[in-house]
Amino acid sequence: MADESSHPAVELDETVHQRVRLGVLAILVEADRANFTYLRDTLGVTDGNLSAHLNVLVNAGLVQLDKRFVEGRPRTWVRATPKGRTTFRAEVEALDRLVTRYRASAKV
Amino acid sequence: MADESSHPAVELDETVHQRVRLGVLAILVEADRANFTYLRDTLGVTDGNLSAHLNVLVNAGLVQLDKRFVEGRPRTWVRATPKGRTTFRAEVEALDRLVTRYRASAKV
Repeated sequence: MADESSHPAVELDETVHQRVRLGVLAILVEADRANFTYLRDTLGVTDGNLSAHLNVLVNAGLVQLDKRFVEGRPRTWVRATPKGRTTFRAEVEALDRLVTRYRASAKV
Repeated sequence: MADESSHPAVELDETVHQRVRLGVLAILVEADRANFTYLRDTLGVTDGNLSAHLNVLVNAGLVQLDKRFVEGRPRTWVRATPKGRTTFRAEVEALDRLVTRYRASAKV
């Protein structure tokens, strides 16, 4: 049985753990920056869904948006902040503990 | 940059990925069964919150509830179904790919 004080799932942060937001940060940590369209298409979400999740990430200080006009059309670039990178790393470590623990006890 | 067709975050299943539900399944795969109170205390959630998440898991066929009276008091045992174990394993594999990919590209 788990130690009641330290189950890895307790360490997961809903802000970062949510699937689309986790995907956004994973891409940004890997790619430095990405544009809105690339994130939308890679993660398979709608414009509205991605916008809502980016707002959560911006409000939490985890990503920054940079809106520019390119050939007269607006283009939004997204970057992870240093806090975003740190928070993503903590999430990956919590996920890694969960995966490792599962592997150690696997009965399936 | 990511291969647009196969980002690991796309493979995550919201039913299982949600933090509390992931924790429930992780505990059940490890422990075979757990009672409601144990899950609630280990995951640090309220009765209402845990009930809502268990309903989602029951409706998806991932866990089964077994309500019994023990010394006149109701007690709810929770077990993962075979489908619950398979689905949890797929989630762990997707998380492992995400963690591995991050480690391979880590710039933080």
